[in-house]
Parts: sequence; C-alpha cells; structure tokens
Amino acid sequence: MRELGEMRCEVCRSGAPSASSEAIRQWLTEIPNWTVVDCDGTKQLTREYRFDNFVDALRFTNLVGKIAEMEDHHPSLLTEWGKVRLTWWTHKIKGLHQNDFVMAAKSDQLYLSL
Amino acid sequence: MRELGEMRCEVCRSGAPSASSEAIRQWLTEIPNWTVVDCDGTKQLTREYRFDNFVDALRFTNLVGKIAEMEDHHPSLLTEWGKVRLTWWTHKIKGLHQNDFVMAAKSDQLYLSL
Repeated sequence: MRELGEMRCEVCRSGAPSASSEAIRQWLTEIPNWTVVDCDGTKQLTREYRFDNFVDALRFTNLVGKIAEMEDHHPSLLTEWGKVRLTWWTHKIKGLHQNDFVMAAKSDQLYLSL
Repeated sequence: MRELGEMRCEVCRSGAPSASSEAIRQWLTEIPNWTVVDCDGTKQLTREYRFDNFVDALRFTNLVGKIAEMEDHHPSLLTEWGKVRLTWWTHKIKGLHQNDFVMAAKSDQLYLSL
C-alpha cells in the first residue's frame, strides 16, 4: 500500500463520502501526532507544530501554503510565536476525506525537512 | 495627538498596566473594524480581513509577520482560503496594551495598501 505522504490529492466533489471510521483509524497510525476533532459538527484533522521563534513558524506556514496551492486543497493555519496549529478538512463534504490525511502526512514531511 | 498608525510599539514589561476602558474606547474610534474579545480571561483585539483567494490571504499574513518582527510584537494569524483572522494582545500583561492598538492600526494600513 502506498504511504499517505507519497499520494496526491484526488478530485473531491460535493456528495463524495466522508472517510470511514476504519479508514481514519488506519490512516492515523501513519500520522500519530494528529488528532481528529469535531468543530461545530465538522470532523477536522489537527496538529500543533513547535518552533524556536516567530520567523520559523511563519516559514513553515508558507511551506504548507505552497503545497496547499499545488494540491488545490487549503487548510487553516494558526501562526503564533513558536507554533503553528494546522487543521485540514474538506469543505465540500464538511468532513474528512482521504485528501486531508494525505496533506497531513505531507505537512509532517515538510516539518521533518526543516 | 498622533494617530495610532504612526506610532511605534514601546517596551512593555510584566506588571505594566493594561489599557483602561476609556483608552480602549478612544482607540477603537480609530480602528472601527476591530473588536475586543475575552479569551479565557485575556482581553484580545481581533479583526477578520477578506481576500479573493488563499495566496492573497497568505501574502497579507506575511506582511503582518514582517511588521510583527520589526516591532518585536507578535499576533496570532489564522490564515484560510480568502480570509485572515488577526488577533493582537500583550502576552506579558495577559491583556491589551497601547501597542496592540498601534499594531492593529498598522495592520489596517497594510491591508489598505494591497
């Protein structure tokens, strides 16, 4: 099976099924630092990354922004001094899709590459 | 009286007094799009800016990041597709200081310059 971080986002249309609980459980084993949260009824995938200062945090935000544009899939990025809280979900289905787990894995790769 | 946007941040030490209600009321007349909110007992100054896409939102985040570094005063920036929620407060006093209003005014100037 291909690892999440090696996959690309696929086209996701309105009405596509959300990720199943079993799929989510399986994917989370590949990205153990991420948590599934419920935000006003929408499942989201979130992780906080730590940095030594504001500039490094903002640099990471920009790196994630670059892959978000490449994959045309956009997260929320809460940038503060020394930390970035990154949250992925799929607006079109108001929940979690495989794409979100792919992007979370790619984000982890970016962080490790710093 | 000098306008907020023309001022610089001053050194703020732990124990410095928070902005008075009267000062806050006065400053908000200069930055009418901002709101004072209470976040777990800490007063914060927040505003959402709108953009046409993700790239423009991220560009604004970077512009604010640049003045934050210049003034050594750092906000939280929630960047999403088409919007940035910018929040200023002063960590050292766990509340609002004149510096936050100065930075809010400077942020508005940046937005208008886009």
